[in-house]
Amino acid sequence: MTDLFFDFLCPYAWRGVELAAALREQGEPFRLRFFSLVEGNHPDNAGNLTWKLTDQPTDAAGGEGYLKHQRPSYGAFLAAQAAYRQGEEKAWAFTLALYRAHFEQKKELDQPAFAQAAQEAALDLKQWEQDRQDEAGLRAALRREFDDAREIGVFGTPTFVLPGGEAAYYRFENLTRDPDQARQFWTLFTQVIHSDAGIGTIKRARNRPPHKK
Amino acid sequence: MTDLFFDFLCPYAWRGVELAAALREQGEPFRLRFFSLVEGNHPDNAGNLTWKLTDQPTDAAGGEGYLKHQRPSYGAFLAAQAAYRQGEEKAWAFTLALYRAHFEQKKELDQPAFAQAAQEAALDLKQWEQDRQDEAGLRAALRREFDDAREIGVFGTPTFVLPGGEAAYYRFENLTRDPDQARQFWTLFTQVIHSDAGIGTIKRARNRPPHKK
Repeated sequence: MTDLFFDFLCPYAWRGVELAAALREQGEPFRLRFFSLVEGNHPDNAGNLTWKLTDQPTDAAGGEGYLKHQRPSYGAFLAAQAAYRQGEEKAWAFTLALYRAHFEQKKELDQPAFAQAAQEAALDLKQWEQDRQDEAGLRAALRREFDDAREIGVFGTPTFVLPGGEAAYYRFENLTRDPDQARQFWTLFTQVIHSDAGIGTIKRARNRPPHKK
Repeated sequence: MTDLFFDFLCPYAWRGVELAAALREQGEPFRLRFFSLVEGNHPDNAGNLTWKLTDQPTDAAGGEGYLKHQRPSYGAFLAAQAAYRQGEEKAWAFTLALYRAHFEQKKELDQPAFAQAAQEAALDLKQWEQDRQDEAGLRAALRREFDDAREIGVFGTPTFVLPGGEAAYYRFENLTRDPDQARQFWTLFTQVIHSDAGIGTIKRARNRPPHKK
Protein backbone atom coordinates (compact mmCIF):
# COMPACT_ATOMS: atom_id res chain seq x y z
CA MET A 1 0.00 0.00 0.00
CA THR A 2 1.33 3.45 -0.97
CA ASP A 3 0.02 6.46 0.94
CA LEU A 4 -0.59 9.66 -0.99
CA PHE A 5 -0.73 12.90 1.00
CA PHE A 6 -2.58 15.70 -0.75
CA ASP A 7 -4.34 19.04 -0.30
CA PHE A 8 -7.22 20.06 -2.57
CA LEU A 9 -5.47 23.43 -3.02
CA CYS A 10 -2.55 21.97 -4.90
CA PRO A 11 -2.57 21.34 -8.67
CA TYR A 12 0.52 19.12 -8.38
CA ALA A 13 -1.25 16.98 -5.80
CA TRP A 14 -4.13 16.72 -8.28
CA ARG A 15 -1.73 15.30 -10.88
CA GLY A 16 -0.52 12.87 -8.24
CA VAL A 17 -4.06 11.76 -7.41
CA GLU A 18 -4.86 11.26 -11.11
CA LEU A 19 -1.65 9.25 -11.49
CA ALA A 20 -2.57 7.06 -8.52
CA ALA A 21 -6.11 6.63 -9.83
CA ALA A 22 -4.74 5.39 -13.17
CA LEU A 23 -2.42 2.98 -11.36
CA ARG A 24 -5.21 1.71 -9.09
CA GLU A 25 -6.99 0.52 -12.21
CA GLN A 26 -3.92 -1.61 -12.87
CA GLY A 27 -4.16 -3.12 -9.39
CA GLU A 28 -1.56 -0.95 -7.61
CA PRO A 29 -2.95 -0.03 -4.18
CA PHE A 30 -2.91 3.60 -2.99
CA ARG A 31 -4.48 5.20 0.04
CA LEU A 32 -5.61 8.85 0.14
CA ARG A 33 -4.21 10.85 3.06
CA PHE A 34 -4.52 14.54 4.01
CA PHE A 35 -1.77 17.11 4.50
CA SER A 36 -2.62 20.78 5.10
CA LEU A 37 -0.47 23.26 3.17
CA VAL A 38 -2.02 26.11 5.17
CA GLU A 39 -0.96 24.51 8.45
CA GLY A 40 2.42 23.45 7.02
CA ASN A 41 3.22 26.94 5.73
CA HIS A 42 1.75 28.87 8.67
CA PRO A 43 4.34 31.34 10.03
CA ASP A 44 3.35 30.48 13.63
CA ASN A 45 4.58 26.93 12.95
CA ALA A 46 8.07 27.95 11.76
CA GLY A 47 9.56 26.53 14.97
CA ASN A 48 7.27 24.23 16.93
CA LEU A 49 3.72 23.49 15.86
CA THR A 50 1.55 26.03 17.62
CA TRP A 51 -1.18 26.71 15.05
CA LYS A 52 -3.43 23.80 14.07
CA LEU A 53 -5.97 24.03 11.29
CA THR A 54 -8.24 21.70 13.26
CA ASP A 55 -8.38 24.21 16.16
CA GLN A 56 -9.82 26.92 13.90
CA PRO A 57 -13.50 27.70 13.27
CA THR A 58 -14.47 26.22 9.91
CA ASP A 59 -15.64 29.59 8.59
CA ALA A 60 -12.50 31.56 9.57
CA ALA A 61 -11.21 33.47 6.56
CA GLY A 62 -7.48 32.97 7.17
CA GLY A 63 -4.78 35.55 6.40
CA GLU A 64 -2.41 36.62 3.65
CA GLY A 65 -0.59 34.48 1.09
CA TYR A 66 -1.19 30.79 1.48
CA LEU A 67 -3.31 31.47 4.56
CA LYS A 68 -6.08 33.00 2.48
CA HIS A 69 -6.82 29.46 1.29
CA GLN A 70 -7.66 28.36 4.82
CA ARG A 71 -11.45 28.27 4.51
CA PRO A 72 -11.70 26.52 1.12
CA SER A 73 -9.05 23.95 2.04
CA TYR A 74 -10.52 23.21 5.46
CA GLY A 75 -14.04 22.95 4.07
CA ALA A 76 -12.89 20.55 1.35
CA PHE A 77 -11.04 18.37 3.88
CA LEU A 78 -14.11 18.11 6.13
CA ALA A 79 -16.44 17.35 3.21
CA ALA A 80 -13.99 14.69 2.01
CA GLN A 81 -13.64 13.13 5.48
CA ALA A 82 -17.43 12.72 5.56
CA ALA A 83 -17.35 11.21 2.06
CA TYR A 84 -14.57 8.79 3.00
CA ARG A 85 -16.83 7.20 5.62
CA GLN A 86 -18.66 5.62 2.68
CA GLY A 87 -15.64 3.52 1.74
CA GLU A 88 -12.58 3.53 -0.46
CA GLU A 89 -14.24 3.64 -3.88
CA LYS A 90 -16.41 6.58 -2.87
CA ALA A 91 -13.36 8.32 -1.44
CA TRP A 92 -11.58 8.16 -4.79
CA ALA A 93 -14.67 9.18 -6.71
CA PHE A 94 -15.32 12.19 -4.46
CA THR A 95 -11.69 13.29 -4.50
CA LEU A 96 -11.37 13.11 -8.27
CA ALA A 97 -14.72 14.85 -8.78
CA LEU A 98 -13.81 17.73 -6.47
CA TYR A 99 -10.31 18.11 -7.92
CA ARG A 100 -11.66 18.20 -11.47
CA ALA A 101 -14.36 20.69 -10.49
CA HIS A 102 -11.67 22.93 -9.01
CA PHE A 103 -8.87 22.67 -11.57
CA GLU A 104 -10.66 21.72 -14.79
CA GLN A 105 -13.99 23.48 -14.34
CA LYS A 106 -12.34 26.31 -12.35
CA LYS A 107 -14.89 26.14 -9.53
CA GLU A 108 -14.18 27.48 -6.06
CA LEU A 109 -13.77 25.00 -3.22
CA ASP A 110 -17.10 25.89 -1.62
CA GLN A 111 -20.33 24.22 -0.47
CA PRO A 112 -21.95 24.03 -3.95
CA ALA A 113 -18.78 22.37 -5.32
CA PHE A 114 -18.72 19.88 -2.43
CA ALA A 115 -22.37 19.00 -3.03
CA GLN A 116 -21.78 18.57 -6.76
CA ALA A 117 -18.78 16.29 -6.11
CA ALA A 118 -20.86 14.24 -3.64
CA GLN A 119 -23.50 13.79 -6.31
CA GLU A 120 -21.01 12.90 -9.05
CA ALA A 121 -19.37 10.39 -6.72
CA ALA A 122 -22.81 8.82 -6.19
CA LEU A 123 -22.52 9.16 -2.42
CA ASP A 124 -25.46 8.32 -0.20
CA LEU A 125 -26.25 12.03 0.08
CA LYS A 126 -28.45 11.76 3.15
CA GLN A 127 -25.74 9.84 4.97
CA TRP A 128 -23.08 12.31 3.80
CA GLU A 129 -25.06 15.29 5.11
CA GLN A 130 -25.58 13.49 8.39
CA ASP A 131 -21.88 12.64 8.71
CA ARG A 132 -20.98 16.26 8.02
CA GLN A 133 -22.81 17.21 11.23
CA ASP A 134 -20.26 15.24 13.25
CA GLU A 135 -17.76 18.05 13.15
CA ALA A 136 -15.86 16.92 16.24
CA GLY A 137 -15.32 13.47 14.77
CA LEU A 138 -14.27 14.80 11.38
CA ARG A 139 -11.82 17.23 12.97
CA ALA A 140 -10.31 14.50 15.14
CA ALA A 141 -9.81 12.27 12.09
CA LEU A 142 -8.23 15.16 10.17
CA ARG A 143 -5.92 15.92 13.05
CA ARG A 144 -4.70 12.32 13.07
CA GLU A 145 -3.89 12.68 9.37
CA PHE A 146 -1.89 15.84 9.95
CA ASP A 147 -0.09 14.26 12.92
CA ASP A 148 0.93 11.30 10.76
CA ALA A 149 2.11 13.63 7.99
CA ARG A 150 4.24 15.62 10.43
CA GLU A 151 5.75 12.43 11.84
CA ILE A 152 6.82 11.45 8.32
CA GLY A 153 8.16 14.93 7.56
CA VAL A 154 5.74 15.74 4.74
CA PHE A 155 6.42 19.33 3.57
CA GLY A 156 4.45 19.55 0.32
CA THR A 157 1.96 17.74 -1.89
CA PRO A 158 1.84 15.26 -3.44
CA THR A 159 3.99 13.20 -1.09
CA PHE A 160 4.01 9.44 -1.61
CA VAL A 161 4.92 7.01 1.17
CA LEU A 162 5.97 3.70 -0.37
CA PRO A 163 5.22 0.31 1.22
CA GLY A 164 8.79 0.19 2.60
CA GLY A 165 8.29 3.52 4.37
CA GLU A 166 10.28 5.74 1.99
CA ALA A 167 8.51 9.10 1.61
CA ALA A 168 9.07 11.73 -1.06
CA TYR A 169 7.51 14.74 -2.68
CA TYR A 170 6.94 14.23 -6.44
CA ARG A 171 6.17 17.33 -8.47
CA PHE A 172 5.54 16.99 -12.19
CA GLU A 173 3.85 19.21 -14.75
CA ASN A 174 2.02 16.87 -17.08
CA LEU A 175 -1.21 15.24 -16.00
CA THR A 176 -1.78 11.80 -17.44
CA ARG A 177 -4.65 9.34 -17.37
CA ASP A 178 -2.98 7.05 -19.88
CA PRO A 179 -2.26 3.68 -18.21
CA ASP A 180 1.12 3.10 -19.87
CA GLN A 181 2.33 6.64 -19.31
CA ALA A 182 1.14 6.56 -15.71
CA ARG A 183 3.12 3.37 -15.21
CA GLN A 184 6.22 5.05 -16.70
CA PHE A 185 5.90 8.15 -14.50
CA TRP A 186 5.51 5.94 -11.43
CA THR A 187 8.31 3.51 -12.24
CA LEU A 188 10.76 6.35 -12.71
CA PHE A 189 9.82 7.84 -9.33
CA THR A 190 10.23 4.54 -7.50
CA GLN A 191 13.56 3.92 -9.25
CA VAL A 192 14.82 7.25 -7.93
CA ILE A 193 13.65 6.43 -4.40
CA HIS A 194 15.15 2.94 -4.45
CA SER A 195 18.39 3.83 -6.28
CA ASP A 196 21.67 2.77 -4.67
CA ALA A 197 22.74 6.41 -5.06
CA GLY A 198 20.66 7.31 -2.00
CA ILE A 199 19.04 10.21 -3.84
CA GLY A 200 17.74 12.93 -1.53
CA THR A 201 16.74 15.57 -4.08
CA ILE A 202 16.48 16.18 -7.79
CA LYS A 203 15.26 19.71 -8.38
CA ARG A 204 15.24 21.70 -11.56
CA ALA A 205 16.93 25.11 -11.55
CA ARG A 206 14.69 28.09 -12.16
CA ASN A 207 15.74 29.15 -15.63
CA ARG A 208 17.14 27.69 -18.78
CA PRO A 209 20.35 29.22 -19.99
CA PRO A 210 19.98 31.79 -22.78
CA HIS A 211 21.41 29.49 -25.45
CA LYS A 212 22.38 25.88 -25.94
CA LYS A 213 25.97 24.92 -25.24
CA MET B 1 28.95 18.97 -22.93
CA THR B 2 27.40 18.94 -19.47
CA ASP B 3 28.28 21.78 -17.09
CA LEU B 4 28.73 20.94 -13.41
CA PHE B 5 28.41 23.79 -10.92
CA PHE B 6 30.13 23.14 -7.61
CA ASP B 7 31.53 24.73 -4.47
CA PHE B 8 34.45 23.15 -2.61
CA LEU B 9 32.43 23.55 0.61
CA CYS B 10 29.78 21.05 -0.40
CA PRO B 11 30.13 17.29 0.14
CA TYR B 12 27.24 16.61 -2.26
CA ALA B 13 29.02 18.60 -4.95
CA TRP B 14 32.09 16.44 -4.25
CA ARG B 15 30.02 13.31 -4.99
CA GLY B 16 28.85 14.99 -8.18
CA VAL B 17 32.41 15.79 -9.25
CA GLU B 18 33.52 12.21 -8.54
CA LEU B 19 30.56 10.95 -10.56
CA ALA B 20 31.44 13.20 -13.47
CA ALA B 21 35.11 12.16 -13.25
CA ALA B 22 34.09 8.49 -13.50
CA LEU B 23 31.90 9.28 -16.51
CA ARG B 24 34.64 11.33 -18.20
CA GLU B 25 36.73 8.17 -18.26
CA GLN B 26 33.93 6.63 -20.32
CA GLY B 27 34.07 9.52 -22.77
CA GLU B 28 31.16 11.60 -21.43
CA PRO B 29 32.19 15.26 -21.51
CA PHE B 30 31.74 17.46 -18.42
CA ARG B 31 32.95 20.97 -17.69
CA LEU B 32 33.71 22.24 -14.18
CA ARG B 33 31.94 25.48 -13.24
CA PHE B 34 31.81 27.50 -10.02
CA PHE B 35 28.81 28.48 -7.91
CA SER B 36 29.28 30.21 -4.55
CA LEU B 37 27.05 28.90 -1.75
CA VAL B 38 28.17 31.80 0.46
CA GLU B 39 27.02 34.34 -2.14
CA GLY B 40 23.88 32.33 -2.94
CA ASN B 41 22.84 32.09 0.73
CA HIS B 42 23.92 35.57 1.75
CA PRO B 43 21.02 37.35 3.52
CA ASP B 44 21.81 40.62 1.68
CA ASN B 45 20.98 38.81 -1.57
CA ALA B 46 17.50 37.63 -0.50
CA GLY B 47 15.92 40.10 -2.94
CA ASN B 48 18.28 41.52 -5.55
CA LEU B 49 21.95 40.62 -5.68
CA THR B 50 23.75 43.26 -3.63
CA TRP B 51 26.58 41.28 -2.02
CA LYS B 52 29.14 39.71 -4.34
CA LEU B 53 31.85 37.39 -3.11
CA THR B 54 34.18 38.77 -5.75
CA ASP B 55 33.88 42.27 -4.25
CA GLN B 56 35.23 41.08 -0.88
CA PRO B 57 38.84 41.06 0.29
CA THR B 58 40.18 37.52 -0.04
CA ASP B 59 41.11 37.36 3.64
CA ALA B 60 37.75 38.58 5.01
CA ALA B 61 36.52 36.15 7.65
CA GLY B 62 32.81 36.23 6.74
CA GLY B 63 29.95 36.01 9.23
CA GLU B 64 27.69 33.50 10.93
CA GLY B 65 26.26 30.25 9.56
CA TYR B 66 27.18 29.61 5.95
CA LEU B 67 29.00 32.93 5.82
CA LYS B 68 31.75 31.69 8.08
CA HIS B 69 32.89 29.56 5.12
CA GLN B 70 33.59 32.68 3.08
CA ARG B 71 37.39 32.72 3.34
CA PRO B 72 38.05 29.00 2.72
CA SER B 73 35.57 28.86 -0.17
CA TYR B 74 36.85 32.03 -1.81
CA GLY B 75 40.47 30.95 -1.39
CA ALA B 76 39.75 27.57 -2.93
CA PHE B 77 37.95 29.14 -5.90
CA LEU B 78 40.85 31.50 -6.62
CA ALA B 79 43.44 28.72 -6.29
CA ALA B 80 41.35 26.56 -8.62
CA GLN B 81 40.92 29.37 -11.17
CA ALA B 82 44.69 29.67 -11.34
CA ALA B 83 45.01 25.89 -11.71
CA TYR B 84 42.40 25.81 -14.49
CA ARG B 85 44.63 28.05 -16.63
CA GLN B 86 46.78 24.95 -17.12
CA GLY B 87 44.05 23.14 -19.04
CA GLU B 88 41.16 20.76 -18.57
CA GLU B 89 43.04 17.70 -17.31
CA LYS B 90 44.87 19.74 -14.70
CA ALA B 91 41.58 21.33 -13.68
CA TRP B 92 40.05 17.94 -12.93
CA ALA B 93 43.16 16.70 -11.17
CA PHE B 94 43.36 19.80 -8.95
CA THR B 95 39.65 19.74 -8.14
CA LEU B 96 39.62 16.06 -7.20
CA ALA B 97 42.82 16.42 -5.16
CA LEU B 98 41.47 19.37 -3.18
CA TYR B 99 38.06 17.77 -2.62
CA ARG B 100 39.65 14.54 -1.36
CA ALA B 101 42.04 16.47 0.90
CA HIS B 102 39.05 18.29 2.39
CA PHE B 103 36.48 15.52 2.73
CA GLU B 104 38.56 12.33 2.91
CA GLN B 105 41.69 13.61 4.68
CA LYS B 106 39.65 16.17 6.65
CA LYS B 107 41.99 19.05 5.80
CA GLU B 108 40.93 22.66 5.99
CA LEU B 109 40.54 24.61 2.75
CA ASP B 110 43.66 26.71 3.34
CA GLN B 111 46.94 27.61 1.62
CA PRO B 112 48.80 24.40 2.60
CA ALA B 113 45.91 22.31 1.23
CA PHE B 114 45.87 24.32 -2.03
CA ALA B 115 49.64 23.83 -2.42
CA GLN B 116 49.33 20.09 -1.75
CA ALA B 117 46.53 19.77 -4.32
CA ALA B 118 48.61 21.70 -6.86
CA GLN B 119 51.46 19.27 -6.30
CA GLU B 120 49.25 16.18 -6.51
CA ALA B 121 47.71 17.50 -9.72
CA ALA B 122 51.23 17.86 -11.11
CA LEU B 123 50.65 21.51 -11.96
CA ASP B 124 53.50 23.64 -13.22
CA LEU B 125 53.92 25.07 -9.73
CA LYS B 126 55.90 28.12 -10.74
CA GLN B 127 53.25 29.01 -13.32
CA TRP B 128 50.47 28.40 -10.81
CA GLU B 129 52.08 30.71 -8.24
CA GLN B 130 52.53 33.34 -10.92
CA ASP B 131 48.92 33.05 -12.07
CA ARG B 132 47.74 33.40 -8.48
CA GLN B 133 49.25 36.89 -8.41
CA ASP B 134 46.74 37.99 -11.09
CA GLU B 135 44.00 38.49 -8.54
CA ALA B 136 42.01 40.91 -10.69
CA GLY B 137 41.89 38.45 -13.57
CA LEU B 138 40.95 35.50 -11.34
CA ARG B 139 38.18 37.52 -9.69
CA ALA B 140 36.78 38.62 -13.03
CA ALA B 141 36.70 35.02 -14.26
CA LEU B 142 35.00 33.90 -11.04
CA ARG B 143 32.44 36.65 -11.36
CA ARG B 144 31.57 35.48 -14.87
CA GLU B 145 31.00 31.98 -13.46
CA PHE B 146 28.66 33.29 -10.76
CA ASP B 147 26.82 35.47 -13.28
CA ASP B 148 26.22 32.44 -15.52
CA ALA B 149 25.03 30.38 -12.55
CA ARG B 150 22.56 33.09 -11.54
CA GLU B 151 21.27 33.34 -15.10
CA ILE B 152 20.52 29.61 -15.05
CA GLY B 153 18.94 29.80 -11.59
CA VAL B 154 21.45 27.58 -9.80
CA PHE B 155 20.54 27.48 -6.09
CA GLY B 156 22.69 24.62 -4.76
CA THR B 157 25.49 22.22 -5.65
CA PRO B 158 25.95 20.03 -7.51
CA THR B 159 23.84 21.45 -10.34
CA PHE B 160 24.22 19.86 -13.76
CA VAL B 161 23.34 21.68 -16.97
CA LEU B 162 22.73 19.15 -19.72
CA PRO B 163 23.69 19.73 -23.37
CA GLY B 164 20.05 20.64 -24.14
CA GLY B 165 20.09 23.38 -21.50
CA GLU B 166 18.09 21.58 -18.79
CA ALA B 167 19.55 22.37 -15.38
CA ALA B 168 18.94 20.56 -12.11
CA TYR B 169 20.32 20.06 -8.64
CA TYR B 170 21.18 16.40 -7.95
CA ARG B 171 21.82 15.45 -4.34
CA PHE B 172 22.72 11.87 -3.49
CA GLU B 173 24.38 10.26 -0.48
CA ASN B 174 26.56 7.52 -1.89
CA LEU B 175 29.87 8.38 -3.53
CA THR B 176 30.85 6.04 -6.33
CA ARG B 177 33.94 5.65 -8.49
CA ASP B 178 32.67 2.43 -10.03
CA PRO B 179 32.15 2.97 -13.78
CA ASP B 180 28.96 0.90 -14.06
CA GLN B 181 27.39 2.36 -10.96
CA ALA B 182 28.33 5.88 -12.04
CA ARG B 183 26.62 5.21 -15.35
CA GLN B 184 23.49 4.00 -13.52
CA PHE B 185 23.35 7.05 -11.22
CA TRP B 186 23.74 9.34 -14.21
CA THR B 187 21.26 7.59 -16.48
CA LEU B 188 18.57 7.74 -13.81
CA PHE B 189 19.14 11.48 -13.35
CA THR B 190 18.92 12.20 -17.07
CA GLN B 191 15.78 10.04 -17.36
CA VAL B 192 14.14 12.17 -14.68
CA ILE B 193 15.12 15.38 -16.43
CA HIS B 194 13.97 14.17 -19.86
CA SER B 195 10.80 12.39 -18.70
CA ASP B 196 7.52 13.29 -20.42
CA ALA B 197 6.14 13.89 -16.92
CA GLY B 198 7.93 17.25 -16.83
CA ILE B 199 9.37 16.51 -13.41
CA GLY B 200 10.25 19.63 -11.43
CA THR B 201 11.17 18.08 -8.08
CA ILE B 202 11.63 14.76 -6.36
CA LYS B 203 12.55 15.36 -2.74
CA ARG B 204 12.59 12.93 0.12
CA ALA B 205 10.59 13.78 3.23
CA ARG B 206 12.55 14.29 6.43
CA ASN B 207 11.64 11.18 8.38
CA ARG B 208 10.62 7.63 7.82
CA PRO B 209 7.36 6.61 9.42
CA PRO B 210 7.70 4.77 12.72
CA HIS B 211 6.62 1.45 11.26
CA LYS B 212 6.02 -0.13 7.88
CA LYS B 213 2.53 -0.06 6.47
